[in-house]
Amino acid sequence: MRGARARGGSLPPPATEDKWVSWLARAFRVGDPGGWVGVGDDAAVLPLAGGLLLTCDTKAEGTHFTRRALPGGIGHKALGSSLSDIAAMGGTPLAALLWVCASKGKGLRRLAGIARGAAALARSLGVRIVGGDTIASRGPLVVGAAVLGRVNRRPLLRSGARPGDRILVSGSLGGSSLGRHLTFTPRVRAGEALARRYRVRAAIDISDGLGRDLVRLCRASGCGARIEAVRIPVSPAARRLSRRTGRSAWRHALSDGEDFELLVAAAPREAARIARERPGGIRWTQIGECVAGASRIVLPGGRESPLRGEGYVHPL
Amino acid sequence: MRGARARGGSLPPPATEDKWVSWLARAFRVGDPGGWVGVGDDAAVLPLAGGLLLTCDTKAEGTHFTRRALPGGIGHKALGSSLSDIAAMGGTPLAALLWVCASKGKGLRRLAGIARGAAALARSLGVRIVGGDTIASRGPLVVGAAVLGRVNRRPLLRSGARPGDRILVSGSLGGSSLGRHLTFTPRVRAGEALARRYRVRAAIDISDGLGRDLVRLCRASGCGARIEAVRIPVSPAARRLSRRTGRSAWRHALSDGEDFELLVAAAPREAARIARERPGGIRWTQIGECVAGASRIVLPGGRESPLRGEGYVHPL
Repeated sequence: MRGARARGGSLPPPATEDKWVSWLARAFRVGDPGGWVGVGDDAAVLPLAGGLLLTCDTKAEGTHFTRRALPGGIGHKALGSSLSDIAAMGGTPLAALLWVCASKGKGLRRLAGIARGAAALARSLGVRIVGGDTIASRGPLVVGAAVLGRVNRRPLLRSGARPGDRILVSGSLGGSSLGRHLTFTPRVRAGEALARRYRVRAAIDISDGLGRDLVRLCRASGCGARIEAVRIPVSPAARRLSRRTGRSAWRHALSDGEDFELLVAAAPREAARIARERPGGIRWTQIGECVAGASRIVLPGGRESPLRGEGYVHPL
Repeated sequence: MRGARARGGSLPPPATEDKWVSWLARAFRVGDPGGWVGVGDDAAVLPLAGGLLLTCDTKAEGTHFTRRALPGGIGHKALGSSLSDIAAMGGTPLAALLWVCASKGKGLRRLAGIARGAAALARSLGVRIVGGDTIASRGPLVVGAAVLGRVNRRPLLRSGARPGDRILVSGSLGGSSLGRHLTFTPRVRAGEALARRYRVRAAIDISDGLGRDLVRLCRASGCGARIEAVRIPVSPAARRLSRRTGRSAWRHALSDGEDFELLVAAAPREAARIARERPGGIRWTQIGECVAGASRIVLPGGRESPLRGEGYVHPL
């Protein structure tokens, strides 16, 4: 438009999600960072009022939920995935916006159900939905939420893990598509507890699969990881799905995504303390450690295999 | 979902936009307001850090822009309409999120153009785009933005106008669909100046048409308005459109919408000062006054006609 052209390099932009995000991070850079964390972590960090967090997520019918999904679950998921981003930063969510883009002239009951699902989740965590937008389109339903939060002590970034750190994951993983992707509990209380009382070196939430999000954390930290398949906490849903698909349950836990659990790195003694004291009142499992080299997974038979970011790859 | 059910009254929810927003305001109410302004004004007000503002807008292809719209204009409009909301609150925008929901596997050049358009507008106003989301869907393009701002002195709310106040509008109105809806300047500098140096009683931005947004301001303030058709500042585009459509240019200025100008109420002496001193370096025109009774417009011939909220009615 007017004024200086945006930065961002030559066209065409890159066609994988992670590279597209890097391209955007360049395109959106405005002047000197000075305490700001912009595009590229789970949420942005703003150096205001002791540290504010800002993030959003958008979900579309046909991509993130089916036409048959319960409206309450859609609202829950749209808001919950942003709350999970705030949790991954160790923050406390304060206020949210909810937007819905729906087909013209129909489905008001569905919209009301979406609003109710988001409102119930917000209320359970003391978050206020303070606004939003409802618009009409001719396409499939699109629902999104933005969340403003505040930092507790300091933000938990993706960067900061070092070789020798232990890798921990909350809850259990895999098979989320069987239903939990619409009913999960964002790990807000656990994230707050980590930021307030533990020395966590790096954190991310698992939205695109353990393998993929672990590789993201490692890339941001400039290290690798070595995890063991037999130590990955496998959810009952992953076992059920495994019986259907014939793929092993741990592979589902590694790759399925939409778990909205937290993945953190901490020094060995601190990691042991987290596993023992269970911040947030949930299970924490050590699945491996950070290493200097490339990321790899020890398969159940003992053989090592490279970890190349298995998980959900966003089509762009 | 879990926990207490959302409030919000019995189904089905109401089918006009303003009533739907009222329904949502009830559904989203969490505990005691205590300084918060939630759903129902141009932006939410959060009693944090001296007053924060939070708002978002979403735009869909086929509803808010055509398939042939320049990508930069789409990004400009998505971000600009949220910036206009911050301007209507007299705030200073600080940070923004941008989300795009686009068809799978194509149009990355278009996405890059959208990002560049938003980035250029953000840079021109010193706003940082700190994050967002890019997702794939099978539907038409949907683009949205959320903006976090800070209050200057106090927020300019829609409520607060009183009978006898003069009504002022910035810039000129009508015919935005001929192009300006993709290139408008959000009145951020004017809004800041109003909040800092003038005693404005109420403010709103004109997104759905002068008639409709004036009635909203009056409803929030518990008064009516009497405006004169001949005093409405008519844009050159409204005149061009009038020659095409055969409708009078002032009717376009009253009803077209997407002007993204500011509409404010102020006591007579303060209104005269605004018109004279031109905060934001733009034209301000007195078009009428607030009254105790129902809202009405004096037609060019001198006859009075009820003002029932002419403008764009969102299909729901």
